[in-house]
Amino acid sequence: MINDLFPAFPWSFLFIQDLIGTIVFAISGAIAARQHKMDIFGMFVLAFVTGVGGGTLRDVMIGSTPVFWMKQPIYVLMISIAVILVAILRNQIDRAYWKKGLLIFDAIGLGVFTVIGVQKGIDFGLHPLICIALGGVTGCFGGLIRDILRNEVPIILQKEVYVTASLIGGIIFILFRDAGFESNWIDVATVTTVIAIRMFTIRYNLHLPKV
Amino acid sequence: MINDLFPAFPWSFLFIQDLIGTIVFAISGAIAARQHKMDIFGMFVLAFVTGVGGGTLRDVMIGSTPVFWMKQPIYVLMISIAVILVAILRNQIDRAYWKKGLLIFDAIGLGVFTVIGVQKGIDFGLHPLICIALGGVTGCFGGLIRDILRNEVPIILQKEVYVTASLIGGIIFILFRDAGFESNWIDVATVTTVIAIRMFTIRYNLHLPKV
Amino acid sequence: MINDLFPAFPWSFLFIQDLIGTIVFAISGAIAARQHKMDIFGMFVLAFVTGVGGGTLRDVMIGSTPVFWMKQPIYVLMISIAVILVAILRNQIDRAYWKKGLLIFDAIGLGVFTVIGVQKGIDFGLHPLICIALGGVTGCFGGLIRDILRNEVPIILQKEVYVTASLIGGIIFILFRDAGFESNWIDVATVTTVIAIRMFTIRYNLHLPKV
Repeated sequence: MINDLFPAFPWSFLFIQDLIGTIVFAISGAIAARQHKMDIFGMFVLAFVTGVGGGTLRDVMIGSTPVFWMKQPIYVLMISIAVILVAILRNQIDRAYWKKGLLIFDAIGLGVFTVIGVQKGIDFGLHPLICIALGGVTGCFGGLIRDILRNEVPIILQKEVYVTASLIGGIIFILFRDAGFESNWIDVATVTTVIAIRMFTIRYNLHLPKV
Repeated sequence: MINDLFPAFPWSFLFIQDLIGTIVFAISGAIAARQHKMDIFGMFVLAFVTGVGGGTLRDVMIGSTPVFWMKQPIYVLMISIAVILVAILRNQIDRAYWKKGLLIFDAIGLGVFTVIGVQKGIDFGLHPLICIALGGVTGCFGGLIRDILRNEVPIILQKEVYVTASLIGGIIFILFRDAGFESNWIDVATVTTVIAIRMFTIRYNLHLPKV
Repeated sequence: MINDLFPAFPWSFLFIQDLIGTIVFAISGAIAARQHKMDIFGMFVLAFVTGVGGGTLRDVMIGSTPVFWMKQPIYVLMISIAVILVAILRNQIDRAYWKKGLLIFDAIGLGVFTVIGVQKGIDFGLHPLICIALGGVTGCFGGLIRDILRNEVPIILQKEVYVTASLIGGIIFILFRDAGFESNWIDVATVTTVIAIRMFTIRYNLHLPKV
């Protein structure tokens, strides 16, 4: 029961990044739970839906079931680690330089989740437009469900260049793929694009126009 | 990549109505996004879930995956058109006679979505009661998810004869089908019923009793 | 069309409990709808998602589609009965001793839904950890979706030992199963555990620590 938790080695670089992204997203869910004075299991639920919610919605919509985290229980372990981390470090975690660190990891998570979503769409033979949308769903809907559960208008729909970063990353993925680049380079280009857009727009406090 | 967006001609009358319904529902999502000062991509997300959310939930629950809009990317195009329309016409769109026009198209959308939902349940061999429920899910849950995302109690659960119109439409569909009417007449009867109930109850400001 | 509503006799004890659980959960949804001044169909929708929402999410995520209530329309009948009960008894239902009675039935529902969720995970060959999670999803997400629709932070994430009771029940299920107990005993042990935890923590007003 314990051994089954870990998939066979060696793990791909993308898989390791995926686990990092899951942990970071789960941490953002756990922190949100603290702000709403939830108990430890409320915190776990919010960390869970934030960490795997986007990929779950993607898998359910394309019909890739049981959804990914049911086949690889290591995701449950990663989310548990995230919850324990937040519970232990709760006094440190409110400080500003922690938050800045989290933003960088969150950008990595968004980039990696975008790559995984687009790739899964391609594996299912879907239209490039739909693959880009799936990248956005995978990257953004975890945070969206988190904000629904804490009863707030999802922050990614309002203030930040977040969905946009994921969609532009998806476009880069498709363009590089059509240009014949090798798989690893496509991934690197996509993740780098997403991180760059997130960091640049946060640094200079840029927003998309309200319509 | 562009040519694949359009399914082969000729398009059925129901399909054209479906596209109209999708556009109208997407417009109502885009307008809701404006009221919450979302940026252009937040607007797109809200238009998207409102336009295809009901049909997506239906497809996911009956196991018709990948869900419909993934197989026909023209829906993404329709929703993009809706968002662009709202962005261009934003100064006109607040005026009263616009809203009245939208209500009529919204009633058409509700009727057509109801037909499509009930029909899909029949195609999957489900019990008539379940088919009627699927018509309601297809017609109503897009607006329901829209209201969840804008952090309000769904308006269709509160003030208007909306779910009811869709369910009565579904009952008409089943009755006409059991009576042996031809497919096109069933569709016309259902859509007309839904539109008539919506227009009549809005005109005379009728509500169901609170319990 | 009416006869198809009932599955063949004899019904298993677990199935009867499942119907009871569905009715009780639906009642809690219908009562919540009353507090928000929804009309009778809004009440029905809220009763529906509360009664079958958890099992629907479970089935969708493991790919058991069409979801359970589509194959057995008796659930729609049970939920209709719940709505009618609440509509008729609305003056009695606000009284304190009614609420205490509902809490006991709600605990039964939570226990039975946990059993059904864990069992379905096992039937699909999933990892024990995932089966426990599926028990929690089945038991808890109906109430969670209910609270999202009424625009409140889900109560089960905040104040009560609810998710925890379901998860501990799931652990008991797996332990008894690994110990080789017979199926009926596993069910009884799980349901009893969940009910005991719920009743005990409500009686002594216990909460998990906030983190």
